Amino acid sequence: MMTQDPDRPPPPVRPSLSAVGAKLAGNSGIRVLMEDLGQALTTRADMLMLGGGNPAAVPEVQTLWRRRMRELLDGGSGFDRMLGNYDPPGGNPAFREAFAALLHRSFGWDVQAANVAVTNGTQTAAFFLFNLLGGRSRTADRRRLLLPLSPEYVGYADQVVEAGTFLSCRPLIDWPAGPSARRFKYCLDFEAIEQALRRGDVAAMALSRPTNPSGNVVTQAELNRLVDLAERFGAVLIVDNAYGSPFPGILFEDVHPVFAPHVVNLFSLSKLGLPGARTGIVVAAAPLVADVQAMTAVVGLANGNLGQQLVLPLVESGEILDLGPQRLRPFYLQRSRFAQEVMQREFDAAGLDWALHVSEGAFFHWLWLRGLRVPARELYERLKRRNVLIVPGECFFFGLEQDWPHRHECLRLNYAQEGGVIEQAVRIIAEEAAAASQ
Amino acid sequence: MMTQDPDRPPPPVRPSLSAVGAKLAGNSGIRVLMEDLGQALTTRADMLMLGGGNPAAVPEVQTLWRRRMRELLDGGSGFDRMLGNYDPPGGNPAFREAFAALLHRSFGWDVQAANVAVTNGTQTAAFFLFNLLGGRSRTADRRRLLLPLSPEYVGYADQVVEAGTFLSCRPLIDWPAGPSARRFKYCLDFEAIEQALRRGDVAAMALSRPTNPSGNVVTQAELNRLVDLAERFGAVLIVDNAYGSPFPGILFEDVHPVFAPHVVNLFSLSKLGLPGARTGIVVAAAPLVADVQAMTAVVGLANGNLGQQLVLPLVESGEILDLGPQRLRPFYLQRSRFAQEVMQREFDAAGLDWALHVSEGAFFHWLWLRGLRVPARELYERLKRRNVLIVPGECFFFGLEQDWPHRHECLRLNYAQEGGVIEQAVRIIAEEAAAASQ
Repeated sequence: MMTQDPDRPPPPVRPSLSAVGAKLAGNSGIRVLMEDLGQALTTRADMLMLGGGNPAAVPEVQTLWRRRMRELLDGGSGFDRMLGNYDPPGGNPAFREAFAALLHRSFGWDVQAANVAVTNGTQTAAFFLFNLLGGRSRTADRRRLLLPLSPEYVGYADQVVEAGTFLSCRPLIDWPAGPSARRFKYCLDFEAIEQALRRGDVAAMALSRPTNPSGNVVTQAELNRLVDLAERFGAVLIVDNAYGSPFPGILFEDVHPVFAPHVVNLFSLSKLGLPGARTGIVVAAAPLVADVQAMTAVVGLANGNLGQQLVLPLVESGEILDLGPQRLRPFYLQRSRFAQEVMQREFDAAGLDWALHVSEGAFFHWLWLRGLRVPARELYERLKRRNVLIVPGECFFFGLEQDWPHRHECLRLNYAQEGGVIEQAVRIIAEEAAAASQ
Repeated sequence: MMTQDPDRPPPPVRPSLSAVGAKLAGNSGIRVLMEDLGQALTTRADMLMLGGGNPAAVPEVQTLWRRRMRELLDGGSGFDRMLGNYDPPGGNPAFREAFAALLHRSFGWDVQAANVAVTNGTQTAAFFLFNLLGGRSRTADRRRLLLPLSPEYVGYADQVVEAGTFLSCRPLIDWPAGPSARRFKYCLDFEAIEQALRRGDVAAMALSRPTNPSGNVVTQAELNRLVDLAERFGAVLIVDNAYGSPFPGILFEDVHPVFAPHVVNLFSLSKLGLPGARTGIVVAAAPLVADVQAMTAVVGLANGNLGQQLVLPLVESGEILDLGPQRLRPFYLQRSRFAQEVMQREFDAAGLDWALHVSEGAFFHWLWLRGLRVPARELYERLKRRNVLIVPGECFFFGLEQDWPHRHECLRLNYAQEGGVIEQAVRIIAEEAAAASQ
């Protein structure tokens, strides 16, 4: 079946890429890192995995999804329809309806099904929104996407077709209990944010809340101020609640999302233990939702139906809101505290100049190693050679107009692993960090 | 929670879109049509649906997927891992391995897991490939995507970020049994194709086989010639086998796909009755597969796992190849023949000047109404008012440099509906077509 003629030169096996292709599939930092992680994982089965963003296996939650699947199988044609029908590109109509009603009951938002669009995961929702709003338009020069707080989620970094669209602000660094407590918190620098908005070319601001990687939660007062600023400067505000409120509720602060006609909220089923179902939800003004759903139709025809069907009755009953407080928050809070205790012990014993971002949500610890003589990326390589996978800080600082040494001093650690894994890994991190410090 | 200040002007609820956004979500023909279809469906429950591309509910196949899901639930941790883990962006490693082995056993192709990437449906695979290859690059002017046979799948039409990238060739029209038999076949016009390739700016050619909408199957000789031409002109050849060989096998001709380093084959689980699982598969040279998988990572992190896990043992055993010959082909062939009989009777009785494309695969009949006084799009509107949904031909002719009256004379009819639906719908089509003909 091979049609190649031995007398002809073989065609190039790697065809030349378009500019768009080179941007979206090029040798970006994240592609190299992902391949590196994948390679390490397949060749080293004993790797201590503090690298990825996979949610933990929480037995009570796994039992719930098993029960739901059996209900679908036993309950008439629901299972067959889930597999056998294309949903409309905006998502399942009953799911959109129920989701809007949930938000109305929970937060009093004036939203209907037309304000809700489903996507194949929140990352895809961000891809759609960033490219809908950012970049050159027919009537304007490049419009920017402003990240009010850097570090921000690495998955955004390469999503915009047009290069150089992101613009980021450094946060202020606060020490809520004094520096000796070794806990810092990033706070929005509103002076810098306003200055960026005054450029007049910001189409949208975006932030994750809780923030991946730092575990920071932008406070309610900060968020309200961002909402006002966005309105004043005619920008859209995109808030990614993938770890946050009202579900999965891996959130240790009492905060909630905010809706307004210029605010877009993203929600995700992944951290409810359903990453394999790829289900994200966009809640926004109806015209923007219509654009998202048109983009789903063009890019992929329709979404996967699995996640929506698994959670639909829990959305209708409101039970989905209980999973965080009852199951996930206690689980992750316990693991967060355990990892903090281990780090305190090991890092102090190693004499490191270290600090952690306060753990306000998500399931990462964000470690700041002051006095590191090598960039975090080099420490990452050394740790990998010792079978510990983490993500180096550099990945999360993009869109900054000036370099910031801080970006070479941080590591993101997934703390959701079992205690033994955390203890082993932290001990090795302490050794390598000490060897690499002044 | 609404933060809007009554003294301030409300922000624009529809923010201005970027050029990329306007292209991918704009008021394209297909968006208008999809909304129109969706609207008609929700307001008219009794609509006779010959419009969409949903596969039929084939009971034996539904039973198979139910059995597989129970196996996953009963078989240890497979179900939990399917829901709870992110797969690598290229797809599940065991699935990729098994899929490559299936192709090796079936066709002797020299492919490994690195030649296989999973995507959230074949339409998304096309989106990735078209934008990887077509459009401006850093070193070249716009590189084109050549459709060697128009009409072609409407879902491709708006997928390329850069406008005007498609270039299409009209086919030759053959009457295999003479015009009085009312059956025609589109044949590749190699003179036109070579002329287009000689422009020197064609990055890739693409075709669906069987062709959606026409049910044409490009012959083995035609395909081999395209493979050679692509190689000679340094172009990639993309063949979308979503309805074809080796599965789902909704294919009434004895043909098979071809592999070469410059050929990309797309496969889909959708027409096996799994459209809700959104699973497409790309088989290509390893570097291009790596680009597709990088694009999955950037656009959506990972794929849904459901489809791969449902079919994995059937791919390993080869049983997936039996579904077409044993279940789907007989089912669709019977429905195709039934619809042809009904049309013959009704259209002849109405005195129409009609012809059908020969039914070689997929589940559409492509009706050519010569002598129609109104464009197909107008006939579509009239039929909709009478509760019959079809897709007008105009949607499928894009990238043609000159208008072609033929594009206003064709309708795509999904023939997979039950007999009673087909009879009612065809009778109404006959009446409306007669009223709109000379």
